[in-house]
Amino acid sequence: MGGDHAPEMVIAGANIAHRRFPDVHFLLFGDEARISPLLDRNAVLKPLCQIRHTPDFVTNEDKPSVALRAGRRSSMRLAIDALEGGEAAAVVSAGNTGALMAMSKIVLRMVPGIDRPAIASYFPTMRGESVMLDLGANVECDADNLVQFAVMGEVFARTVLGVSQPSIGLLNVGSEEQKGHEEVRAAATLLRNTDLPVHFHGFVEGDDITAGTVDVVVTDGFSGNIALKTAEGTAKLYSEFLRGAFRSSLVARIGYLFARHALNKVRKRTDPRRYNGALFLGLNGIVVKSHGGTDALGFANAIGVAVDMAANDFNSKIRAELEHLQAAANKPQAATG
Amino acid sequence: MGGDHAPEMVIAGANIAHRRFPDVHFLLFGDEARISPLLDRNAVLKPLCQIRHTPDFVTNEDKPSVALRAGRRSSMRLAIDALEGGEAAAVVSAGNTGALMAMSKIVLRMVPGIDRPAIASYFPTMRGESVMLDLGANVECDADNLVQFAVMGEVFARTVLGVSQPSIGLLNVGSEEQKGHEEVRAAATLLRNTDLPVHFHGFVEGDDITAGTVDVVVTDGFSGNIALKTAEGTAKLYSEFLRGAFRSSLVARIGYLFARHALNKVRKRTDPRRYNGALFLGLNGIVVKSHGGTDALGFANAIGVAVDMAANDFNSKIRAELEHLQAAANKPQAATG
Repeated sequence: MGGDHAPEMVIAGANIAHRRFPDVHFLLFGDEARISPLLDRNAVLKPLCQIRHTPDFVTNEDKPSVALRAGRRSSMRLAIDALEGGEAAAVVSAGNTGALMAMSKIVLRMVPGIDRPAIASYFPTMRGESVMLDLGANVECDADNLVQFAVMGEVFARTVLGVSQPSIGLLNVGSEEQKGHEEVRAAATLLRNTDLPVHFHGFVEGDDITAGTVDVVVTDGFSGNIALKTAEGTAKLYSEFLRGAFRSSLVARIGYLFARHALNKVRKRTDPRRYNGALFLGLNGIVVKSHGGTDALGFANAIGVAVDMAANDFNSKIRAELEHLQAAANKPQAATG
Repeated sequence: MGGDHAPEMVIAGANIAHRRFPDVHFLLFGDEARISPLLDRNAVLKPLCQIRHTPDFVTNEDKPSVALRAGRRSSMRLAIDALEGGEAAAVVSAGNTGALMAMSKIVLRMVPGIDRPAIASYFPTMRGESVMLDLGANVECDADNLVQFAVMGEVFARTVLGVSQPSIGLLNVGSEEQKGHEEVRAAATLLRNTDLPVHFHGFVEGDDITAGTVDVVVTDGFSGNIALKTAEGTAKLYSEFLRGAFRSSLVARIGYLFARHALNKVRKRTDPRRYNGALFLGLNGIVVKSHGGTDALGFANAIGVAVDMAANDFNSKIRAELEHLQAAANKPQAATG
């Protein structure tokens, strides 16, 4: 029931996702009276879906604390409960981000060894695709949080993006060791000295994000959110300028007609729907947050991310990696004790 | 002597700037043996220039602390000394940013009422041009620093960009009052309650920067630097994708030929050289930092910014505004005392 165009957009998205992942079944949480007629029109999708009726849902205006207390029968909460109970392999929602995070933390709890969940997303670069986290779950992060984000990002790049030896960069205002604030410098020291089999590149700057200098960009939720939205805004500005240019004269319009096919490829490559689906990492369960304003294609991509993570058994891999980390962290401590 | 292509690029930049501002004279600090032959070839520029010879210069690798101690006879230091002594109206340098800032602080000192200098720059938006600060001078800022940046940014937008009532936004991860870390929330409270005649819009997010939601974007140097470089990187990615698209087929190449004129306009509008020249605000004197890798046109634009600020008597206006701020800050205190 979340997002601007639910439940129609959600069902249409499930329909696209079904064509890509024919084995996936869907549990749909929400108002049966609105969902059922949509399924009745789709004979292929219908047998793969189960509706779990509830009249309650979380709105975008609800504060997370209110949603937690008052939303125990909401579609969002019931979906997370189904994940916790083992009925679902992943949750995908286009609803209220803060409420989804708060409920997921309470119901699913954190993976042992991870203190705080992070929001991650992948995006296009000059060299392919990279992942960045945290994008806004934690406004302030200490060095340990950043190291844990690095581990989760590394596992994501390896298992979902398919990078064999992902490189990790810490977002900073310069590449020299003495740059940046204390947390980011301390995290760099930890990552440089870890026994973990991670490839720590060092500090990266804002322009390294799209350059694809590293596969995983690690940062606190404040800087990460600002970087993500600045990139989105800049891409929008650029396409606005282009649109204006192609409309500016008859000759330019003709040029557009010739170049249209090639330009559509650029549009596809930078289409925000293609990168829809922010991951809540660090929870005992796969939760993917779709953009609220997306359409069916964007929602299908968010489902795709969830399917990839479930199929790759993402959370078990994070657990294993964290056990390594713990073992590595304990070793030097024992040596100095 | 600073930047990748000095002194040739500096002289060529001065030559372009001279055509725009025929009244401006130049003091050139550096190696006379290298500068003099360049001026000999330019009969128009030569009479407007004075060379102040020094064999010393700061390199890009010098730490600011080293440059301060060992660079007392460097071209950078002598230029700042000339500004302090009233011989120059402004300093423009393409050299080491940290050294330029450290020397400027020591020699020029801060405007009374400003605790820390900020680096500011203006950039294109959907609605025209905006200014953002701090872009990296202060990795950590308290609420008072941010309020002072707001005042300086407001004066800059009014006097140099020519906006009659500039609006101010604080960069944050959401627009709601409870969002973000303590410093940014405290700064918002101060700006909301100030008696200053500034128009405080409230919080803005990363995508508001290029949307032009406000005329002045205020942030700490860590987030500001990341936002600036992320925007630069995204613009670069987008133009790379476009370049690739236009080369991808013969038809696309033909399209490019038709649209070339219009596309060049976009290129001009987003040309980093157009926005070259970061301002060091809050100092008793006008210091403009050109990008080290820029060319003559970019350097001429940095000179243009310095000329604009000097002609508009920017620093006196900041002083006057700060006296207002001080008076406003004292008023409620007196009322509660």
